[in-house]
Amino acid sequence: MGRRLSDVSAPARLAGPDEGIGRDELALAARNHGLPLEALRYDLTPAGLHYVLTHYDIPYVADEASWELAVGGGVRRPLRLAPADLRAYPAVTLRVTLECAGNGRALLTPRPVSQPWLVEAVGTAEWTGVPLRLLLADAGVEDGAVDVVFTGADHGVERGVEQDYRRALPVDVAVGDRADVLVAHTMNGAPLPPQHGRPLRLVVPGWYGMAHVKWLRDITVTDRPFTGFQQTVAYRFRQHPEEEGEPVTRMAPRALLIPPGFPDFMSRTRVVRPGALELEGRAWSGRAPVSRVEISTDGGRGWGEAEVEPAGAHRWAWRRWRFAWTAVPGDHVLMARATDAEGRTQPLDQPWNRGGFTNNLVQRVPVVCLESGS
Amino acid sequence: MGRRLSDVSAPARLAGPDEGIGRDELALAARNHGLPLEALRYDLTPAGLHYVLTHYDIPYVADEASWELAVGGGVRRPLRLAPADLRAYPAVTLRVTLECAGNGRALLTPRPVSQPWLVEAVGTAEWTGVPLRLLLADAGVEDGAVDVVFTGADHGVERGVEQDYRRALPVDVAVGDRADVLVAHTMNGAPLPPQHGRPLRLVVPGWYGMAHVKWLRDITVTDRPFTGFQQTVAYRFRQHPEEEGEPVTRMAPRALLIPPGFPDFMSRTRVVRPGALELEGRAWSGRAPVSRVEISTDGGRGWGEAEVEPAGAHRWAWRRWRFAWTAVPGDHVLMARATDAEGRTQPLDQPWNRGGFTNNLVQRVPVVCLESGS
Repeated sequence: MGRRLSDVSAPARLAGPDEGIGRDELALAARNHGLPLEALRYDLTPAGLHYVLTHYDIPYVADEASWELAVGGGVRRPLRLAPADLRAYPAVTLRVTLECAGNGRALLTPRPVSQPWLVEAVGTAEWTGVPLRLLLADAGVEDGAVDVVFTGADHGVERGVEQDYRRALPVDVAVGDRADVLVAHTMNGAPLPPQHGRPLRLVVPGWYGMAHVKWLRDITVTDRPFTGFQQTVAYRFRQHPEEEGEPVTRMAPRALLIPPGFPDFMSRTRVVRPGALELEGRAWSGRAPVSRVEISTDGGRGWGEAEVEPAGAHRWAWRRWRFAWTAVPGDHVLMARATDAEGRTQPLDQPWNRGGFTNNLVQRVPVVCLESGS
Repeated sequence: MGRRLSDVSAPARLAGPDEGIGRDELALAARNHGLPLEALRYDLTPAGLHYVLTHYDIPYVADEASWELAVGGGVRRPLRLAPADLRAYPAVTLRVTLECAGNGRALLTPRPVSQPWLVEAVGTAEWTGVPLRLLLADAGVEDGAVDVVFTGADHGVERGVEQDYRRALPVDVAVGDRADVLVAHTMNGAPLPPQHGRPLRLVVPGWYGMAHVKWLRDITVTDRPFTGFQQTVAYRFRQHPEEEGEPVTRMAPRALLIPPGFPDFMSRTRVVRPGALELEGRAWSGRAPVSRVEISTDGGRGWGEAEVEPAGAHRWAWRRWRFAWTAVPGDHVLMARATDAEGRTQPLDQPWNRGGFTNNLVQRVPVVCLESGS
């Protein structure tokens, strides 16, 4: 009867050629959820519509006042901070688009078996908190620091490894005058909801969600590279399991469009009637601002330029784009493709890797236009 | 090229014997979401954790002030009410547990192909609004009324039928001194979130979610039974497609337990270490109060009585229960079974029907208890 963690926690695998989504993937899809694409209309994603991914259980925090965030390791003045202490710092608010690194995974062939995202794992919120660089300045980072390690209160087992969720940032991302990493206590003007890290979480503008450690309880400065599970086993680009792999970091460019017309309940196929329509959506990139969005209404044969709204004050938030289309009866495939100011663009062939990370293959939205009067 | 709605909207079907969850079901699972079971700890489900099911798109309401709810049909004084008019009525607040009629569907064999719920399609909120009977009294229901029909602003096509979402209640459920149906404008003290019906929705305590029409824009009293799609095609108990079927109405009894210990990320298997644990969960029924919750820790061979908290003032809300368990190394299957005051209880064999409705088969939670010190 002796059971070990390896008995309940199997290695990562790929789905077989004809393998549908399994019960395990469905259980993840029932807990976690994406942004319903029609909610791309909102500049700020309303509460409950922002994507959520939790690796383990959402910790239950009965009393915020007893929560403590420790700042230690290679620092001269270790800190212990309650949420109220963090609220006493001058507050900074940033509008940030946040996307799961696994977004697009379930569209890959072969499919890595994990949280089966289609394209909806995104959302935009205004996060308010304390710049991490201020906390680390108060603590006094010692010379020789390499990584800053962040530990959440969420606990589980993954691929045989029991762990608290833990990720690191290179010290130059965490500190310095231009660093805009936040320890956030507020989301869209309200205390963090439980599923978004109540009472405290990290916000790392431009990076995929795995870096934004939720239920943050410890920050440790180290003088050697962090080698924990979520840094060196998970969230790596690999073609073969034995590779070390490059780390997943910042968000690749992506545009999404609000599916026009109305859906069929089951197939989710979109239905429109003939006539002029304005297509609309959002685009973002974690490395350089989005500079261009191209639209195809014929499955990628022809492309036209969308009108992209100015970024305004929100460097880290998605940008709205619009495109005029006249629908005629028949079948259409709509596509939207973002390019950033440094020339990165979305691929037309899938960017496959074993973890199913950063699949920013261009979205395809099949639309059926009925005959007039039907 | 002439396309018709029937081309994009197929009849209901059952999955084949070895058919995994398909792309269409996954698309529904990515939009809609359940209650992460650890959130059963909260008396009131926090924003964003309550289950959500929308048949079509979530309507975008840019300006609540221009919303209008019409009350008409067989009434002497038709009404047109803005949300502000409804807020001017004396407010009633009810704590209500709400469950999707399709909860449990994906656990059925064979599986009806639709929104693939496991067991998490539930949540509890405090809904504030105007008793429907007061609105109907103001409108003056004419003699001979049979049904009251509710129309939402959500529009789509389903099994070939283009429609606004529309459901009816028998007039005796809608009016009368004991009727506690609400037209709600507030959820947990805040305006309704978009996905829960902003600005107005129906709340029908004790009934499955399909009756709680969201984005409510019309109430029509009729002198004949309503025969719309969601009343006579969907939400019926059928063994064969050609049957008329009985309507789905009130929630069957169900208990759910908070899975103990911690999860494996992928399999969601629960892991505990040996020792005393308190199992905890919730139970509800839409017909009569829950009177009893029984727990099995050995896959249904033996059963013990859980301690059920008194219902207190909240007749329509779930009740908390607790059960002491001492975990010993090995494999265990935990189960919780609710019985209501009129003797209805949860089945141990699946209550199969073609729509996959009201599958309140007892939940099974596999738990692995490790050896001490492992």
